[in-house]
Amino acid sequence: MKPFKITSKSNKARTGIFTTRTGQYETPFFMPVATKAAVKYLDAEELEEISTQSIISNAFLLYLKPGLDVIKKHKGLHNFMNWKNCIFTDSGGFQVLSLNDFKDKFSDKGLKFKSPFDGSLHELTPKKVMEIEQTLGSDVAMCLDQMPLYSSTYEQVKEATARTHLFAKQCIKYHKGKSQLLFGIAQGGTFPDLRKQSAQFISNLPFDGIALGGLAVGEPLDKMKEMIKISIENMPEEKPKYLMGVGSPKEIIEAVEQGIDIFDSVWPTRNARHGKIFTSEGYLEIEKSQNKNSPEPLEKNCNCKVCKTYTCAYLHHLFKTNEPTGKKLLSYHNLYFLQDLMRKIRGAIKEGKFKELKDEYSCFG
Amino acid sequence: MKPFKITSKSNKARTGIFTTRTGQYETPFFMPVATKAAVKYLDAEELEEISTQSIISNAFLLYLKPGLDVIKKHKGLHNFMNWKNCIFTDSGGFQVLSLNDFKDKFSDKGLKFKSPFDGSLHELTPKKVMEIEQTLGSDVAMCLDQMPLYSSTYEQVKEATARTHLFAKQCIKYHKGKSQLLFGIAQGGTFPDLRKQSAQFISNLPFDGIALGGLAVGEPLDKMKEMIKISIENMPEEKPKYLMGVGSPKEIIEAVEQGIDIFDSVWPTRNARHGKIFTSEGYLEIEKSQNKNSPEPLEKNCNCKVCKTYTCAYLHHLFKTNEPTGKKLLSYHNLYFLQDLMRKIRGAIKEGKFKELKDEYSCFG
Repeated sequence: MKPFKITSKSNKARTGIFTTRTGQYETPFFMPVATKAAVKYLDAEELEEISTQSIISNAFLLYLKPGLDVIKKHKGLHNFMNWKNCIFTDSGGFQVLSLNDFKDKFSDKGLKFKSPFDGSLHELTPKKVMEIEQTLGSDVAMCLDQMPLYSSTYEQVKEATARTHLFAKQCIKYHKGKSQLLFGIAQGGTFPDLRKQSAQFISNLPFDGIALGGLAVGEPLDKMKEMIKISIENMPEEKPKYLMGVGSPKEIIEAVEQGIDIFDSVWPTRNARHGKIFTSEGYLEIEKSQNKNSPEPLEKNCNCKVCKTYTCAYLHHLFKTNEPTGKKLLSYHNLYFLQDLMRKIRGAIKEGKFKELKDEYSCFG
Repeated sequence: MKPFKITSKSNKARTGIFTTRTGQYETPFFMPVATKAAVKYLDAEELEEISTQSIISNAFLLYLKPGLDVIKKHKGLHNFMNWKNCIFTDSGGFQVLSLNDFKDKFSDKGLKFKSPFDGSLHELTPKKVMEIEQTLGSDVAMCLDQMPLYSSTYEQVKEATARTHLFAKQCIKYHKGKSQLLFGIAQGGTFPDLRKQSAQFISNLPFDGIALGGLAVGEPLDKMKEMIKISIENMPEEKPKYLMGVGSPKEIIEAVEQGIDIFDSVWPTRNARHGKIFTSEGYLEIEKSQNKNSPEPLEKNCNCKVCKTYTCAYLHHLFKTNEPTGKKLLSYHNLYFLQDLMRKIRGAIKEGKFKELKDEYSCFG
């Protein structure tokens, strides 16, 4: 059975059913980031409350801590973190990039890195990454890839993309998980020819889904949209498409419009911790003095428990006094807002009203 | 109507019904500390889940931030923080003590201090404190007192106790809240004659309840027990008695045995954040390597959602990786454990089995 079935379309935007070993999930969906097996400040029960279909964790970090022996004893990551719905695991190439010096770490064999926990030396090969992700038991394993920085030259991006392709083939070879899906990652930086080439290369391999990597790394929105367009045009329609690292309402809507099905980002939770709140009128900065005495909720039309319960004044107070309960409540609201947006996006596509929805959210710039 | 009614006794330990403007509460009870209108990492819904009857907040800090204008606009602290049950407010003398130089700040008029938020100068008089607590609209206002340090000399404690008595009389004079109860605070350090004198003095004033202040500040447990004994012997049986700052299972049980009805402390939440966990077998240090691969809950017989849901290995992992979700879950468990202990204490007193309960919890040393 194919893991993805398109259920409705509105121009290039589409809804679908994504089937993994834990169940069926409606696309387009957004994944909160649980890098180290927890979404910051929230527990699994709260993520379920806000209708979270999938989360994404990091294979590389979980391999280091708690280590695979602990995950094995719990019979996988789902049991370990008590999460019953879908889990994607990313390989961790991105984390290595941000934690370690980039140039020296990658070779055609894989990547070498120092543990951020204890400085110990490790090597991640495509084979090793597949073994780790299989042990974690995620619904969807992501390939090892090499993501170039936005500042990289054409030659650097070309090299990283070629290596990503090499890794992709090896990941397919070593992926043994019968019930685990495997997604390839297309790279190519912001160079149209490399994007096209990578989209075609990854599309020609027997992956269950395709991710667009290396975007939302600092490039202008128009550049991102151009790269998404080139990628999508060179990918088969029937496969689920995952835009990695995107989580702002505006970018999500733009990407869904082009045919993206899956998203993940720390954007809603990180912004919540910094007091930047999603509302139907755009961003609200909770720190601003206008909220100091406001008896209104963050968002009048929001049905989340934070908006039903607490005022802007209270949340402003918790933010200003650096109370962790404030970060928790603001994270809850931002994720609720985004899951609610995804629900509305799915509804709008089904009803052929995606353009109206896009207009409604134009407050996000 | 008297706000306190003793409902059963087992030697000096007793259960009672404490009636405030928000409802009836069963004693003995324990109050989590919501200094700045939030218990760290937890929201009001979670505190209700664990059967919290009352919390305690800090009048001095809330007066500075968010300020009384904000609280007034919300018609009181209950609405501001969305807490429907009982709220005690402490004056803040203790916070001033820990934040500012002690000697120069107190006079017979009150105390002067610098705001920890912006360095602005403020003066708290008994009159001002009563006005603040009335505006906050707490169920129970605590008097302004001067708490001596454990290291204070006899003369220093004598002076602080005399000033506490002066403030107590003025607080009664200026307390206008009809539906708000007022508790006096007996001091006396660890000097038997001063404790006795202060217990008698405060007992002779028309307070709704009496607190024992200046204990659990570093003195040995036997010294604390001796001071509680002297205090209780010199206080009327029918008034509710509140031992301030006590929150370890052992100290609570010892104090209930002597006739204490009400407790508050940051002990359960602060210890949770430092990985020291309450269990029926005593303290568990979640950081220890024996928990790294443990598929057991924190506490086998605990019915809290953390123990029903997560393993020691998961909580150990969150603690070691400094994930805020870990601090939240551990805080939840420790407070649940303590509220469950209070429920068991009330049951044991009613059934005349307090000694058996004390034996059962002897694991706390």
